[in-house]
Amino acid sequence: MKLSQSGIGTMRVNNLDEMYPVQDILLQSGQLVQYGTGIYGYSNIVMLVKRNLERIIGEELNKAGCIEVQLPTLQPDTMWKKSGRWNKYIDEGVMLTVESDKGTFCMAPTAEEAVVEFAREKLKSYKHIPVTYYQIGEKYRNEIRTRGYLLRGKSFLMMDAYSFDADLDGLDKSYKKVRDAYLRIAERVGLKMIPVVADNGSMGGKKSEEFMFVSPIGEDTILYDEETKTALNTEILEKDNYEQYLKEEYGIEDISKYEKRKAIELGHIFQLGTMYSESMNAKFIDKDGKEKPFYMGCYGIGVSRLLAAIYENSCIKDENGKVVGIALPKELAPYKIQIIPKIENEQKVKQALELYERLNGTAILDDREGISFGAKIKDCKILGTPYMAILGDKVEDGKVELENTKTGEKQVVTIEEVIKLI
Amino acid sequence: MKLSQSGIGTMRVNNLDEMYPVQDILLQSGQLVQYGTGIYGYSNIVMLVKRNLERIIGEELNKAGCIEVQLPTLQPDTMWKKSGRWNKYIDEGVMLTVESDKGTFCMAPTAEEAVVEFAREKLKSYKHIPVTYYQIGEKYRNEIRTRGYLLRGKSFLMMDAYSFDADLDGLDKSYKKVRDAYLRIAERVGLKMIPVVADNGSMGGKKSEEFMFVSPIGEDTILYDEETKTALNTEILEKDNYEQYLKEEYGIEDISKYEKRKAIELGHIFQLGTMYSESMNAKFIDKDGKEKPFYMGCYGIGVSRLLAAIYENSCIKDENGKVVGIALPKELAPYKIQIIPKIENEQKVKQALELYERLNGTAILDDREGISFGAKIKDCKILGTPYMAILGDKVEDGKVELENTKTGEKQVVTIEEVIKLI
Repeated sequence: MKLSQSGIGTMRVNNLDEMYPVQDILLQSGQLVQYGTGIYGYSNIVMLVKRNLERIIGEELNKAGCIEVQLPTLQPDTMWKKSGRWNKYIDEGVMLTVESDKGTFCMAPTAEEAVVEFAREKLKSYKHIPVTYYQIGEKYRNEIRTRGYLLRGKSFLMMDAYSFDADLDGLDKSYKKVRDAYLRIAERVGLKMIPVVADNGSMGGKKSEEFMFVSPIGEDTILYDEETKTALNTEILEKDNYEQYLKEEYGIEDISKYEKRKAIELGHIFQLGTMYSESMNAKFIDKDGKEKPFYMGCYGIGVSRLLAAIYENSCIKDENGKVVGIALPKELAPYKIQIIPKIENEQKVKQALELYERLNGTAILDDREGISFGAKIKDCKILGTPYMAILGDKVEDGKVELENTKTGEKQVVTIEEVIKLI
Repeated sequence: MKLSQSGIGTMRVNNLDEMYPVQDILLQSGQLVQYGTGIYGYSNIVMLVKRNLERIIGEELNKAGCIEVQLPTLQPDTMWKKSGRWNKYIDEGVMLTVESDKGTFCMAPTAEEAVVEFAREKLKSYKHIPVTYYQIGEKYRNEIRTRGYLLRGKSFLMMDAYSFDADLDGLDKSYKKVRDAYLRIAERVGLKMIPVVADNGSMGGKKSEEFMFVSPIGEDTILYDEETKTALNTEILEKDNYEQYLKEEYGIEDISKYEKRKAIELGHIFQLGTMYSESMNAKFIDKDGKEKPFYMGCYGIGVSRLLAAIYENSCIKDENGKVVGIALPKELAPYKIQIIPKIENEQKVKQALELYERLNGTAILDDREGISFGAKIKDCKILGTPYMAILGDKVEDGKVELENTKTGEKQVVTIEEVIKLI
């Protein structure tokens, strides 16, 4: 991206929100644009980071044999009435509804009903299962307590997956497959997402785990052991004889090592069992020729929430620990490097353009005119590329000063080395 | 994709819709799932064809220097009231509205208002323009006359771009840049999209062209010259002295060569001028230090409509001209080849799996058990891969029978040749 064509001028940020400094940088610099409480527009870089997350999540689910599909966001009330959840969601006030000439719809808050309808006509026989469908799409909730810019909004991006099996054994296998994919996703995005046995809440059903990221901006509390990086649900402490239970169930001898810590729920996986397939009468013909309800699992990742966690985790701090900028991890950054020529030197401008072109879409070129060198450096650390390349007077032609924006480490390298690195 | 994990069983299609035979195949085979009038879910392949379209459109717009962003689908009524369009859209009954605790929203039917708000805080000076923002996202309309499955629905995927310039000259340049990108997109997706000078309709403004694809399923009528592959708006015939006008304006001597033909509007580009920037008071500081309203252009491509046109254009016909299957063009097909082993032969099954793995995500493997070879061949032509590879008894090991599914042409080739082709 050439900054001269991007509409990005010099950016100023100050008095950052103490809880959410990085998201506040995004907002103050116009990389996030607020349209109302919990409703945001995304500028190029933030949108592309989100797309990289989608790509990584999709790749790992595909590897696990899951099948990507797209379910409608505009959902007829009829199927929600079949499952019996329409009135419940309406009463709770979380549903955003739409009236049309063809009756009432909701803007999808989740898609169990839609996926059961999707599967109903396809998965008629035991031969067609197991299958796990997933989609990555916008979800909607009349969220009254919006929070932390992207953490909880009225509209948010979700990955939601749904497994269909013939029995509980099959469900256990599908559940494990997705759970393993989650752990690989966590690895790739560079956030420790710890599975914690959870209550099922309003979703109902059997086994379930939440994937928690320990962070001061979390709104959940977990019991966390720094040493083993494992966590427990705080509800465990309410059990009778919880010490004995912990020993038997988890092999934990010393609960006192577990401290209460704030955490963000980034994912949630559930065994639904036959709840939806029975209420919605979705069945398959088993080997014995009999109709049976599917055993279902459902699996979610809050992609815009994950995006928020990644941004907050990608801050540049000054010597006093104050957040002063953004440095995205290389795997997630849509542009890996920002190239800044000192514009008074024509030769350097030309070399910067050449380097930009050779990096073929993976770089930002700051070719804006009439902006000071100092302001360009600052802007780079607001946009968040992992590397910055300065073509300045101090280094000879064919070389650049390369800075790792997260660590501040600088070195003089050749242009060929930059291309190899990126 | 392994069909054994995909939930796809043997598919039957018959009595195809005469107007929309290919979309009817998608529906009957469960590749499209209808949830209500004009509301569909997409199975894996159809969704991925759509994603390929998004990718191609994005690549060409990026090449033209356009900047991808994401504007909200949930839009506050306040900005629509600023532009003066809220009541108009409500009166026409095309808006799907949502009540929330924070007031009334609409589900975005278009995004001129949202993009003006997006630009307002960013493009403060002549130094920040020209810029063209675009997004590819779901749009919503209370469409009463839904049509042709994907052609006109209540929810549909759109690419919408918006240019911001300092004056009419700049607007002309931005308009041409996007127009050229449209022609490159048409080239790459393999559909002749002909620009036709258009009326601006409800959008208001200056110059505008529609990009039309000549097709019997179109709901528009244009004047089309088969020889030169050019087209004119039928409204021209209503002009006084239209023959003289055609000669002077277009150099056309013989209007009788132009025949009335049905066409699908796949894209539309408009010069809006200062209409929205004035009504919404969105201005920049020009070189002379004075505040001026932006000159805007807006540009749309109906992505789900384009998807429908591409599918209808990708039919396999029998000797009587009857549509019997689908063969997607190679550039757009997410899976280029379907591999079918004759399952009675273990060696062939093994080779099929090896070929599948070497093709690294670009192939479908029909590894379903208990399904006849004939049914597998039929299913392949319903899913629509451009090629089919049969590992059968008739060809020696290490070779396959390769069929071009569109032309029916068959040849025996080595596995290495298949890999090279794909």
